[in-house]
Amino acid sequence: MNGDFGLLSPVSASPLVAALTGDRAVLAAILAVEAGWAAVLEQHDLAPAGTAAVVAHAADASRYDLADISRRAQGGGNPVIPLLADLRAQVKALDTGGSGANGVGAAKAVHTSLTSQDVLDTALMLVARNTVEALLADVKGTTAALARLAEKHADTLCVGRSLTQHSLPFTFGLRAAQWFHGLAAAARRLEALELPMQFGGAAGTLAAGTVLTANAGVTSGSAATDPFALSDALAAQLGLAAAPAPWHTNRLAVTSLGDAVASVVDALGKIAADVLFLSRPEVAEVAEPRAPGRGVSSAMPQKQNPVLSVLVRSAALQAPGLAAQLHLAAATFNDERPDGAWHTEWPALRQLLALGLGSAGHIRELAEGLQVFPDGMRRNLDMSGPLLLSEGVSAAVAPLLAGDGTSGTGDGKQQLQAVVDKTLQAPVPEQAATYRRLLREAVPADALSDAQLEELLNPASYLGQAAGISRRILAAFPDFALTSTEPDGNGDSRG
Amino acid sequence: MNGDFGLLSPVSASPLVAALTGDRAVLAAILAVEAGWAAVLEQHDLAPAGTAAVVAHAADASRYDLADISRRAQGGGNPVIPLLADLRAQVKALDTGGSGANGVGAAKAVHTSLTSQDVLDTALMLVARNTVEALLADVKGTTAALARLAEKHADTLCVGRSLTQHSLPFTFGLRAAQWFHGLAAAARRLEALELPMQFGGAAGTLAAGTVLTANAGVTSGSAATDPFALSDALAAQLGLAAAPAPWHTNRLAVTSLGDAVASVVDALGKIAADVLFLSRPEVAEVAEPRAPGRGVSSAMPQKQNPVLSVLVRSAALQAPGLAAQLHLAAATFNDERPDGAWHTEWPALRQLLALGLGSAGHIRELAEGLQVFPDGMRRNLDMSGPLLLSEGVSAAVAPLLAGDGTSGTGDGKQQLQAVVDKTLQAPVPEQAATYRRLLREAVPADALSDAQLEELLNPASYLGQAAGISRRILAAFPDFALTSTEPDGNGDSRG
Amino acid sequence: MNGDFGLLSPVSASPLVAALTGDRAVLAAILAVEAGWAAVLEQHDLAPAGTAAVVAHAADASRYDLADISRRAQGGGNPVIPLLADLRAQVKALDTGGSGANGVGAAKAVHTSLTSQDVLDTALMLVARNTVEALLADVKGTTAALARLAEKHADTLCVGRSLTQHSLPFTFGLRAAQWFHGLAAAARRLEALELPMQFGGAAGTLAAGTVLTANAGVTSGSAATDPFALSDALAAQLGLAAAPAPWHTNRLAVTSLGDAVASVVDALGKIAADVLFLSRPEVAEVAEPRAPGRGVSSAMPQKQNPVLSVLVRSAALQAPGLAAQLHLAAATFNDERPDGAWHTEWPALRQLLALGLGSAGHIRELAEGLQVFPDGMRRNLDMSGPLLLSEGVSAAVAPLLAGDGTSGTGDGKQQLQAVVDKTLQAPVPEQAATYRRLLREAVPADALSDAQLEELLNPASYLGQAAGISRRILAAFPDFALTSTEPDGNGDSRG
Amino acid sequence: MNGDFGLLSPVSASPLVAALTGDRAVLAAILAVEAGWAAVLEQHDLAPAGTAAVVAHAADASRYDLADISRRAQGGGNPVIPLLADLRAQVKALDTGGSGANGVGAAKAVHTSLTSQDVLDTALMLVARNTVEALLADVKGTTAALARLAEKHADTLCVGRSLTQHSLPFTFGLRAAQWFHGLAAAARRLEALELPMQFGGAAGTLAAGTVLTANAGVTSGSAATDPFALSDALAAQLGLAAAPAPWHTNRLAVTSLGDAVASVVDALGKIAADVLFLSRPEVAEVAEPRAPGRGVSSAMPQKQNPVLSVLVRSAALQAPGLAAQLHLAAATFNDERPDGAWHTEWPALRQLLALGLGSAGHIRELAEGLQVFPDGMRRNLDMSGPLLLSEGVSAAVAPLLAGDGTSGTGDGKQQLQAVVDKTLQAPVPEQAATYRRLLREAVPADALSDAQLEELLNPASYLGQAAGISRRILAAFPDFALTSTEPDGNGDSRG
Repeated sequence: MNGDFGLLSPVSASPLVAALTGDRAVLAAILAVEAGWAAVLEQHDLAPAGTAAVVAHAADASRYDLADISRRAQGGGNPVIPLLADLRAQVKALDTGGSGANGVGAAKAVHTSLTSQDVLDTALMLVARNTVEALLADVKGTTAALARLAEKHADTLCVGRSLTQHSLPFTFGLRAAQWFHGLAAAARRLEALELPMQFGGAAGTLAAGTVLTANAGVTSGSAATDPFALSDALAAQLGLAAAPAPWHTNRLAVTSLGDAVASVVDALGKIAADVLFLSRPEVAEVAEPRAPGRGVSSAMPQKQNPVLSVLVRSAALQAPGLAAQLHLAAATFNDERPDGAWHTEWPALRQLLALGLGSAGHIRELAEGLQVFPDGMRRNLDMSGPLLLSEGVSAAVAPLLAGDGTSGTGDGKQQLQAVVDKTLQAPVPEQAATYRRLLREAVPADALSDAQLEELLNPASYLGQAAGISRRILAAFPDFALTSTEPDGNGDSRG
Repeated sequence: MNGDFGLLSPVSASPLVAALTGDRAVLAAILAVEAGWAAVLEQHDLAPAGTAAVVAHAADASRYDLADISRRAQGGGNPVIPLLADLRAQVKALDTGGSGANGVGAAKAVHTSLTSQDVLDTALMLVARNTVEALLADVKGTTAALARLAEKHADTLCVGRSLTQHSLPFTFGLRAAQWFHGLAAAARRLEALELPMQFGGAAGTLAAGTVLTANAGVTSGSAATDPFALSDALAAQLGLAAAPAPWHTNRLAVTSLGDAVASVVDALGKIAADVLFLSRPEVAEVAEPRAPGRGVSSAMPQKQNPVLSVLVRSAALQAPGLAAQLHLAAATFNDERPDGAWHTEWPALRQLLALGLGSAGHIRELAEGLQVFPDGMRRNLDMSGPLLLSEGVSAAVAPLLAGDGTSGTGDGKQQLQAVVDKTLQAPVPEQAATYRRLLREAVPADALSDAQLEELLNPASYLGQAAGISRRILAAFPDFALTSTEPDGNGDSRG
Repeated sequence: MNGDFGLLSPVSASPLVAALTGDRAVLAAILAVEAGWAAVLEQHDLAPAGTAAVVAHAADASRYDLADISRRAQGGGNPVIPLLADLRAQVKALDTGGSGANGVGAAKAVHTSLTSQDVLDTALMLVARNTVEALLADVKGTTAALARLAEKHADTLCVGRSLTQHSLPFTFGLRAAQWFHGLAAAARRLEALELPMQFGGAAGTLAAGTVLTANAGVTSGSAATDPFALSDALAAQLGLAAAPAPWHTNRLAVTSLGDAVASVVDALGKIAADVLFLSRPEVAEVAEPRAPGRGVSSAMPQKQNPVLSVLVRSAALQAPGLAAQLHLAAATFNDERPDGAWHTEWPALRQLLALGLGSAGHIRELAEGLQVFPDGMRRNLDMSGPLLLSEGVSAAVAPLLAGDGTSGTGDGKQQLQAVVDKTLQAPVPEQAATYRRLLREAVPADALSDAQLEELLNPASYLGQAAGISRRILAAFPDFALTSTEPDGNGDSRG
Repeated sequence: MNGDFGLLSPVSASPLVAALTGDRAVLAAILAVEAGWAAVLEQHDLAPAGTAAVVAHAADASRYDLADISRRAQGGGNPVIPLLADLRAQVKALDTGGSGANGVGAAKAVHTSLTSQDVLDTALMLVARNTVEALLADVKGTTAALARLAEKHADTLCVGRSLTQHSLPFTFGLRAAQWFHGLAAAARRLEALELPMQFGGAAGTLAAGTVLTANAGVTSGSAATDPFALSDALAAQLGLAAAPAPWHTNRLAVTSLGDAVASVVDALGKIAADVLFLSRPEVAEVAEPRAPGRGVSSAMPQKQNPVLSVLVRSAALQAPGLAAQLHLAAATFNDERPDGAWHTEWPALRQLLALGLGSAGHIRELAEGLQVFPDGMRRNLDMSGPLLLSEGVSAAVAPLLAGDGTSGTGDGKQQLQAVVDKTLQAPVPEQAATYRRLLREAVPADALSDAQLEELLNPASYLGQAAGISRRILAAFPDFALTSTEPDGNGDSRG
């Protein structure tokens, strides 16, 4: 049986994503939980000395046949059941005690007092922990690059757009800062998440664990322990958060994780959406970095496709549905273990992690090598000409005209709107000159000198707090704005 | 790099599903399209004689490295691009012409005039065609089994339920017939779907195909052909529907396929939802078939979980979101090929097919071996006792009381509601007797004899058209009600 | 209590949408079902003569307090229950029989043998029927306008785009034809849908209906009828499709309706996505029609927003989720009436209808008045220059070079790719000239004359079957291509 | 034009929900933002003295025609535009200055420097703030009731269920505690959310605000202010969180709100799912509170439907899709204001708030009046008998048998599994006795006395940490466990 390698999901078909979220990684995480549990039991005198070492030895994912376990998982409905059988066999085989036949009896300790859900919930949190770590590294590489763009282009004029149309002068630095803002804010939330271990036993009462620890106290005469102590020890062993109580039926830990990853993908998707537009030939304000093999077309040799953004957009269109699937599971999580909702979580959570990590890597490549074309930005800004400044002109000039209300021409604002309306009737290429002329006619020169008028029609003079907003944003996320390794810099010119 | 084998998606982790929908199957379909195209070109004198044979030889999926192609697909954003490079190399290597060095020049004909989207769209339709075929076979196995259950249990009394509460007497035969109904109706729609090939070239204008066919006419002096003829020939070659025009940007073929598969999964999910409830220990009206390894629990040896239904429910909770993803892609399919929406389709379509096929197999196993417990059904029906018949009693008896309107006790219906209200105040175990007594007191014996009253309180007498409805349903889908191979029969008794 | 008027859903906040899908329309449909049923009963001698007239009189939606009924619907969980109480009171009040006190006794016949689900399912199908009718009218207005655009602009050159980049020469006529194609194909599917009535009684067995008709036969001595006959008569009375059996638990009729409406919205969304891009200032190939109040901005007097497309895009982003909600309900429709899934359908179905109708109206306005700017299209096409034709050049010229393989410069295709690569190293403004020069140098003049080369570099000569595809599309949907009322024509020039 | 009153959404058709989330509430919030802004401007000497009072007077929602504004919102695509026109007219009309004709000139200050998005984003946050407050009050009423149930039923035995089957002994107290757990944890997250105001002006640069404050400094000679100060003042004025920068294009505030509300609905849905099952006649462990008009059926007088849970389940099936819609909008939020994504947020956010508030009210009614039937719980627990304890028996007894390994009967665990297997072959009614007998035979009496065996087979002795887990949960959320007003108590017995 052949496995799947992401042939139909290029956004996440990278070796890194496979290593952290693939079936093999899940299997390894399940084994890590069982091995961690054996260690905890041994530490608490609940398993024979030597158990942990044998189980750790057996818990090497390469010992197991992924395809076979996957197939057998259909029987009981989850992969822990068949894996356990194989793990116990491995432990028995390895548990020769060095010196002889019987070994320490490690097999008996395997999975003792646990239930499948304990193991799989915890294992998926391990997978999530590792994936999130890698994802955040790529995010911070991205935000550092965006911070550099924000600073470098603090004064690079471009045009702001709303509902597809030009709205006001803008700077590319602020655009980069807002990309940074969205991504850093989402990532900070992801970073703050607690990923808890799970331990509750078959019904979430810790019944078997209670018997185990009670018996142990009796048998060994040592100080009593209790299942909560085992739970905390497992959390420490695995580097996960401790849970005050089993969360078998309350899936906030899972949905919060999903929501946080989806929020990061949202922020990445917003960047991709902007780059896809800005790198169109008609717009040409930025271009994705060139790299061998990136963006090629099978039929058209001259094409350079913005593949990074295309792939991230495809992830951004998928992530919301996957996060919703986790909520749907949580909302229908009946009984002490549900009749389908739990199974619904697994593929969604894994795919969300894979999309997140894949997307973050792509946007990092994009941000670190983005080609920025200030001339193109200026060209597009100038396309709308001084009319783009009519809001500011109105604010500045209308008061100067207010006294004229008696003339029947309306208040200042209305007079200026009339100027705009008249301008819009001129052919487009003549609108800039027309607007200047009509304005000049409308406002007495003693109220507004020619120089003052020109200043009003200079887009650079109507940027408001673009620079200040950028600085505030970067200052709010200092840990996302800095980076230890400076790449060679963003490309910044076109040949 | 290890592949994925469905470790986290047991509902679809079967060898059959992998063989029909896995990455290898997709790769094989892509190669089949390229080989089919070579054949079409050769047939139309647009490729050298011998081309088709060489390309067919090279189009053996086992020649290609799935993992490597998946990884390289990130460069251009789709798997056709790297596969083409490898295919051309294989063709060149194989094209030795038997007799000597140069061969027929088959490599030049590979992919001529096609674009990646032509190939991938067509390949996914091939994958869909094969998967749907297998899915329908499982559906028909299921509906045949359900039809047998409907006939066998036409008179098996049970209770109908609405909003979780008992509503009226029902039969298990009608329940099976309605399961049949939902599934057959959805499957018929899937069966009727046309799955079209795609051929439009880089922009959907057939420009390269036009040059190709035009040149050919000139060169060979043979009768002119045109790209539409090639398109129809490819459809015939692959066994797909012809398309009157390229559908590069109109994705109804994809969304309709998704909707149809999702509708089948809906119907399977409805069956699973019912079985999950009916097989609960407190209800015990049916049980899933027992099979070695099915339904085992890792911790609790006595448990027998309804794993088939659990897995199908997990699919039923996922399918709607996947179908929605296809619509979302269709609704944002900008330009002549979009900037992410197309890529969004691929994993959703494939996963939907896998969930559908996996679920159909499980429900077939369930339907063919369902254990039915008429005694349990009767026990639950009797739990609600004659009160369950109050609707029918009211309809039959109220007119007999109507003349009593003068007495100030209200019309017949109101008098009977008063009887029900009074009954409900009695302790539950006494309600049946109380209801009988109060009814007897309310209705003069000359209007309703004791025997007539008992008949009114017999649930079997208030089944309406249960049998007739079942017959109508089966008659409406004759091709789904019959099966050539009769299994040994449904289990029907409990020890 | 104030009602909602669509303040937050401007895409569907029109009087037409409210009239066809609002709460009042639903209420009216429920009343129409009850009135239709009274008529059916009277026709079959199952209700006193005169009943139908009295119920029809009472079934005037303006007699009922929508806010009060909505609030009381919380009690039993559906609006039919409180409405029935009020309807019966109205019927009693109106049933004075003209001549005297008691009337015909119409109240007793109201809702006889029906259950809430019969009424609400049927009523929602009535609402759907009326809404779909209006929606299809707007769609046909749209497709007629698009067909005109396709014909008028059959030769209007523009550029095709894939993954945001220029791909090949295209025509605006083909773009309009493909918009037509997507919309007509989706609408034809919607048009073909059967919207069935529902009649099954409390548990879907027709039990009460069976008693009713059986008693009637006995009482009246007339020819026996059966509940299926009543069912068909109700369908005929209301103009809905007859159902061979109750579909209380099989929701394919609902999901198919949702899928079909969503598919129409997909097609509308695709048009909106293209118009949003094409009407950007940097692109300027089309513009939405101007109308008083359309597209205004609160702050920026010079802006003209493409509001129609913006609103339709917002609908296109919502519809997939609503269709998914219907599937989710269908897939979890447990028992003979479910414990929440049925209630989940209502708002989704209604909102989907409203979004569909609202969107269709907007796109009709857009299509009928779209401003088309051929000059802008040509400008953007020329931006990519002759390089855009490299696919066609390669196809035509490579064979002429093939004999040159001995020179070590590779085959013709490779030589031409080298020409492209070299061209791309030139500054953008010089690429056109460079490409011409290098091509001229590469191909001997006796193989390709200057005139022939120029023809190859003329985008109009590389349109493939653009015109033929358009014609095929229009021919495939003749009923969508024609319209009786020709509007004044599409705007076609910019001042 | 008639408004909508929630006829098809009974879960949220309450006067409270309408008052907090209806169109009128949104309109009022928009007006509150404009009034708040006028106050801020006046406080900063940026509007004439008296302005705030006049605008506040005009900002009475009852002055405006909701239906008309909704309809006109189609023109510009958002409701702020038409409302502003009407608001300015009202301000002009009211601004008579008391003493005379012209007033203070308040109209000029209305909306100065704002853009529609500033107002609508802020208004929706106000709506959210008010709704969340009410929602949390209902949640705390619910959690207080659940805490009481957890304590009262700490020792009430029931059965735990997994994958629909009985797993282990459980307590109803722990079930209530886990319901509490899920709800309190989700609500705490909602409570912690910061809901920010929005102020950025037309392109998010604060350009107009910069001109306004700059001019003011010049004119009045007073200390300079800046737009950030205005922003913070507006936040304080409205009781929202301040935002360090405009978030026009970064929608984490919106998606986080949606995720948090959806998470609360998940927790409510989980409770509903359990109650729906536990109140089925076959299970009868709990029942929803009886109240006049609750749970009635139109056709079946004896039915008592669990309507509260049914309605909440319908909300739980909808909320995930609505939260996903917010993420989808965020992920496609292109430019400085997007071309449809922003409009996609509004209905989803509002509907999510309405579903959340409606559901919380229903579950509160349910929790405060839930009828609990310990006898029914015990009956269901006993149904599975001592076999349910086989996990614990195995843990306790297997070691006693371990020495017997030589006999060829396998280790202790295997011997006990054999006992279970043999037991399961007995008829169900005899399984309890069989299991006891076989166990007694398998274990020597000197290793395990009869009394010890009986203790092992007592479900109350295998509850693990049920009580301790409950206490930990309540202790972790002290603010959710207490309530000031104690209702009369939970119903606890059946007639």
